[in-house]
Amino acid sequence: MKQYIVIGCGRFGSSVAKTLYKMGHDVLAIDGNEDIVQNISEEVTHAVQADATDEHALRSLGIRNFDVAVITIGSDIQSSIMATLIVKELGVKYVVAKAQNEMHAKVLYKIGADRVVFPERDMGMRVAHNLVYTNILDYIELAPEYSIMEVTALEDWIGKSLLEINIRSKYGINVMAIKHEGDRINVSPTAKDIINKDDVLVVIGHNNDLKKLERE
Amino acid sequence: MKQYIVIGCGRFGSSVAKTLYKMGHDVLAIDGNEDIVQNISEEVTHAVQADATDEHALRSLGIRNFDVAVITIGSDIQSSIMATLIVKELGVKYVVAKAQNEMHAKVLYKIGADRVVFPERDMGMRVAHNLVYTNILDYIELAPEYSIMEVTALEDWIGKSLLEINIRSKYGINVMAIKHEGDRINVSPTAKDIINKDDVLVVIGHNNDLKKLERE
Ligand SMILES: Nc1ncnc2c1ncn2[C@@H]1O[C@H](COP(=O)(O)OP(=O)(O)OP(=O)(O)O)[C@@H](O)[C@H]1O
Ligand SMILES: Nc1ncnc2c1ncn2[C@@H]1O[C@H](COP(=O)(O)OP(=O)(O)OP(=O)(O)O)[C@@H](O)[C@H]1O
Ligand SMILES: [Ca+2]
Ligand SMILES: [Ca+2]
Ligand SMILES: [Ca+2]
Ligand SMILES: [Ca+2]
Repeated sequence: MKQYIVIGCGRFGSSVAKTLYKMGHDVLAIDGNEDIVQNISEEVTHAVQADATDEHALRSLGIRNFDVAVITIGSDIQSSIMATLIVKELGVKYVVAKAQNEMHAKVLYKIGADRVVFPERDMGMRVAHNLVYTNILDYIELAPEYSIMEVTALEDWIGKSLLEINIRSKYGINVMAIKHEGDRINVSPTAKDIINKDDVLVVIGHNNDLKKLERE
Repeated sequence: MKQYIVIGCGRFGSSVAKTLYKMGHDVLAIDGNEDIVQNISEEVTHAVQADATDEHALRSLGIRNFDVAVITIGSDIQSSIMATLIVKELGVKYVVAKAQNEMHAKVLYKIGADRVVFPERDMGMRVAHNLVYTNILDYIELAPEYSIMEVTALEDWIGKSLLEINIRSKYGINVMAIKHEGDRINVSPTAKDIINKDDVLVVIGHNNDLKKLERE
């Protein structure tokens, strides 16, 4: 069990803090706003009101004994930078910080952040893809050019076997699993398996080949 | 090619708008703040300053001809609700809205939103999982109890073949692909394949079984 400190408890920070706590970890949540501290106090180990740009305040909270710090201060870039610097100097081993933009991220890395995240930007890209390709339910980027996609069956696959559809030679991709009605998962599809309406396929392949499955 | 309108161009909204535009779609971006409109204007089809709670303003922009509207107004819940209502009443077919919390989401669905998203909350959960299970690089939830995970090889797998590791009977999960050094992807792993240090495995299985691979 690790000890986490989350600085800034907006929507992103509070979700990080609550999730870590639910996963069984020690979480100290810090925010400058008293109401916010009050609100989250039942869902973390400790919640404290403090200004994260005040080195003495952080030091007196015993910050240096924590394994990981997550700095999620958003709009106030200067405070985010100062808090990251202080936490790093106090000796926290692994520091994650949320950035507003690329320039902000660069500064955070320079002063020692181990990882910088862009929650709104990343989720914006995900939602946009989802809106355009409504048959692509989810995906994992495996390598720069290879992905795994969860796709709903294309119209002309329905009622046919994998052999008839001939996905591998027609599209150059592999079917790794099929989810049939009622969440029945087939993890070793064979050439004889038939695709039904509303089946979901898990496929893997080169992005250029996977693109052929995208349906707008 | 569809026509999208994005209302509110904060970090999330601007990411949605820019991504849709990059994907080749028509994007009208609206924000009440002139600087923000200025900033995004080169990266979308049109950017307009308007108050999204002003029905006449939206009507005069020809909103009803758009296929999809994404309402990303964040902190001001009342404006988010009003904008969603107006856009829906003007006849936009598919409306996505960003919510602050569950109550906000409930209201958005009641007034006709087709999909409600929680970008900060969802990304907070993702980042928390990533911090705890550092060997789990990514995952797709396939069914409520089944997932696909991208995991780095466990210590005691290294130098062994899949047959020796015996993942299927030991853990009850299937290895669907292996990423070796240099992004060489093996999409049909056999019992003889050897796992090397830094290999990444794509596995599928029941969540209870996949949990055994999590390494804190
Ligand atoms: N110097 C500081 N010390 C402690 N907390 C701070 C400080 N500055 C900001 N915060 C807190 O950080 C939290 C997140 O900041 P803010 O709301 O500006 O970010 P945000 O990116 O809009 O958040 P989100 O999108 O996650 O809701 C707020 O609850 C705020 O009170
Ligand atoms: N009534 C309105 N009409 C038009 N735009 C609005 C209105 N109310 C808010 N906005 C715009 O919506 C955008 C997003 O709002 P806000 O910054 O409060 O949300 P947020 O959730 O903190 O954003 P993000 O986290 O995505 O950066 C802002 O650029 C703001 O100018
Ligand atoms: Ca990945
Ligand atoms: Ca904000
Ligand atoms: Ca935000
Ligand atoms: Ca899914």
